[in-house]
Amino acid sequence: MEMITVTLGERSYPITIAAGLFNDPASFWPLTRGDNAMLVTNDRLAPLYLDSLSGRLRQAGVKVDRVVLPDGEQNKSLTVLDQVFTALLAKPHGRDTTIIALGGGVIGDLAGFAAASYQRGVRFIQVPTTLLSQVDSSVGGKTAVNHPLGKNMIGAFYQPASVVIDLDCLNTLPRRELSSGLAEVIKYGIILDAVFFAWLEDNLDALLALEPRALAYCIRRCCELKADVVAADEREQGQRALLNLGHTYGHAIETHMGYGNWLHGEAVAAGMVMAVRAARRLGQFSDADAERVSALLLRAGLPVSGPAEMAAEDYLPHMMRDKKVIAGQLRLVLPVTLGNAEVHAGVADDMVVASIKDCQA
Amino acid sequence: MEMITVTLGERSYPITIAAGLFNDPASFWPLTRGDNAMLVTNDRLAPLYLDSLSGRLRQAGVKVDRVVLPDGEQNKSLTVLDQVFTALLAKPHGRDTTIIALGGGVIGDLAGFAAASYQRGVRFIQVPTTLLSQVDSSVGGKTAVNHPLGKNMIGAFYQPASVVIDLDCLNTLPRRELSSGLAEVIKYGIILDAVFFAWLEDNLDALLALEPRALAYCIRRCCELKADVVAADEREQGQRALLNLGHTYGHAIETHMGYGNWLHGEAVAAGMVMAVRAARRLGQFSDADAERVSALLLRAGLPVSGPAEMAAEDYLPHMMRDKKVIAGQLRLVLPVTLGNAEVHAGVADDMVVASIKDCQA
Ligand SMILES: NC(=O)c1ccc[n+]([C@@H]2O[C@H](COP(=O)([O-])OP(=O)(O)OC[C@H]3O[C@@H](n4cnc5c(N)ncnc54)[C@H](O)[C@@H]3O)[C@@H](O)[C@H]2O)c1
Ligand SMILES: NC(=O)c1ccc[n+]([C@@H]2O[C@H](COP(=O)([O-])OP(=O)(O)OC[C@H]3O[C@@H](n4cnc5c(N)ncnc54)[C@H](O)[C@@H]3O)[C@@H](O)[C@H]2O)c1
Ligand SMILES: [Zn+2]
Ligand SMILES: [Zn+2]
Repeated sequence: MEMITVTLGERSYPITIAAGLFNDPASFWPLTRGDNAMLVTNDRLAPLYLDSLSGRLRQAGVKVDRVVLPDGEQNKSLTVLDQVFTALLAKPHGRDTTIIALGGGVIGDLAGFAAASYQRGVRFIQVPTTLLSQVDSSVGGKTAVNHPLGKNMIGAFYQPASVVIDLDCLNTLPRRELSSGLAEVIKYGIILDAVFFAWLEDNLDALLALEPRALAYCIRRCCELKADVVAADEREQGQRALLNLGHTYGHAIETHMGYGNWLHGEAVAAGMVMAVRAARRLGQFSDADAERVSALLLRAGLPVSGPAEMAAEDYLPHMMRDKKVIAGQLRLVLPVTLGNAEVHAGVADDMVVASIKDCQA
Repeated sequence: MEMITVTLGERSYPITIAAGLFNDPASFWPLTRGDNAMLVTNDRLAPLYLDSLSGRLRQAGVKVDRVVLPDGEQNKSLTVLDQVFTALLAKPHGRDTTIIALGGGVIGDLAGFAAASYQRGVRFIQVPTTLLSQVDSSVGGKTAVNHPLGKNMIGAFYQPASVVIDLDCLNTLPRRELSSGLAEVIKYGIILDAVFFAWLEDNLDALLALEPRALAYCIRRCCELKADVVAADEREQGQRALLNLGHTYGHAIETHMGYGNWLHGEAVAAGMVMAVRAARRLGQFSDADAERVSALLLRAGLPVSGPAEMAAEDYLPHMMRDKKVIAGQLRLVLPVTLGNAEVHAGVADDMVVASIKDCQA
């Protein structure tokens, strides 16, 4: 079992990582006998885990109600959020309830915002079930729902009381989703930790084989890296921006292709290769490291070029709508050396186009 | 001009109180030239104040957009909240925008929650236009919308950057709404400040005549009293409960009669008299002070008994649904002496019924 603490003063909390955690109600600390809880999940995960998990908690004396939401990013909406409030009020659950999010980033983000705003804030436990949510969205306290006019536009910074990562979940996760999560894993190596990047090169096959020890170490290291960044910059003013390596290009791909056609991690993988090319053109990074990045992404089952249907010029209008555009100037996260990155202001449009063309198949 | 500071560490903020503030864009600190703002108001206030206020701000170089919501408590909903997000995203407004709430407690609570959750939090300025919102809802950082299954069930603790109280607004406020606000004003005297209570006895006529100096002092004193309580207990664990004097009875009246038939302050006024009767039955307070409370409420145009249609027994089921019921035990705020109150646990049902019967016309 791996365990780390996200250090945020009185809002600090533990992340527990191991196989088989769902079988032990003690994993769900600070829930104890007599507590009320509302388990929030989706109709894809419910048949796999809901009965066993709520059964264990009930055996341990926790009063568990459940709400099953429709699966999918399009359901990360105010309307579906309201279904959670209705379920809570129908009982009713009081301010002393605990919301448990069982699912990937969609459920975690939505249930987290429900916890932040139900009666102005109730206790919240994250139980992330995708690799992406285990290494990324469950750490850092960002919660949100989408609006028809923009993704993640309505939300709160709200920290969970604990995060419970049962590695066994990953056995039912589709392979494409696993690869998508690995894109974020590899990202941490590129921007923050060259030693971890090398560890990934040595252990990628074990990760793809879902070998528990390799997985547990990998997830722990990613959570640590993200937790350090978040602790230094909880409200995303500075260093936290580095976590967006590849994301400005990637969002252009996701938006242009329509959400869901390219998974988030797939778009980020291609975007990271583009960022590496932009860095090379600015004389940063090295050809050898650029080669290592592409090779590792390919081994993880990820793309290293954008969609064939998308011309280099198609990226720019989407990229200019990015939150990192300030006064019309594009700011890109670019790698400097392996394990180091920086926010680069004033990247010229033709340089961006060239970096995309470098990656066309 | 009266000015006070609500002291909450790095979230401290000023409250400015004077006649004519709307004519001076400097009142709207920290808004400055070049800033973006979204003015949120309702269709009752818009014809009265919207053009002149946004005109002044534009003259001062602030880029002001506006959203006009339908008036009324029934519009303090997730659906109407979404209209604010749509207006913000249609432009779009970024994280550097400022939301200005121009209205009573309904607009303040809803726009405050919009500010708390738009892009996970943007700057917020309260411009309360009812006496109730000036002395109560604009201080303390509670924001919320209603759910069909419960009032104020969805919200956040979120502090404004400043509160701007223009006394001239009260000239257009219906008299019944003014009286309703006075109920909360008198409440502060009863629970926290006997000297202020006596000042109210001396100055009630000036307040009813909307005499600016009396109003400014009165509002400042109420804001100070509430700010002190909030600073000591931001998240409502202890002392803040005293602010609910009369509210447990009052909510029973509001709910039983249907929202809007009895104004909030009217129900609270009757509820405070009932709480005084309960205190007397427990040997607290004095008959002379009980008489002073009723006399002052009557002068303010407020009821001192419940609705004739409502039997004493009708109150209990509503009261037992109060947030202050813990483990089936009713907890009531009761006055001890003039200027002092306490939370009284385990008040017997027949004592509650008797206190209501004491006040039947
Ligand atoms: N809050 C943050 O800091 C943050 C960071 C990154 C991403 N996000 C958000 O996370 C979301 C993406 O998260 P995601 O990639 O986990 O997507 P997701 O939650 O949609 O999960 C992907 C798919 O896998 C299914 N699934 C989940 N766990 C499974 C399991 N164990 N077995 C079988 N199927 C399973 C889900 O039902 C879904 O169909 C996006 O909405 C994104 O905005 C948030
Ligand atoms: N956040 C808090 O701490 C807190 C505290 C107390 C009450 N509240 C909330 O406040 C709300 C009640 O506030 P309220 O009493 O101000 O009601 P309100 O906002 O509905 O205003 C009452 C009526 O007066 C109108 N009005 C407002 N200002 C006016 C003016 N200057 N001239 C003419 N008409 C005017 C409004 O349009 C409305 O029709 C409730 O929703 C309650 O839950 C919140
Ligand atoms: Zn990502
Ligand atoms: Zn009140």
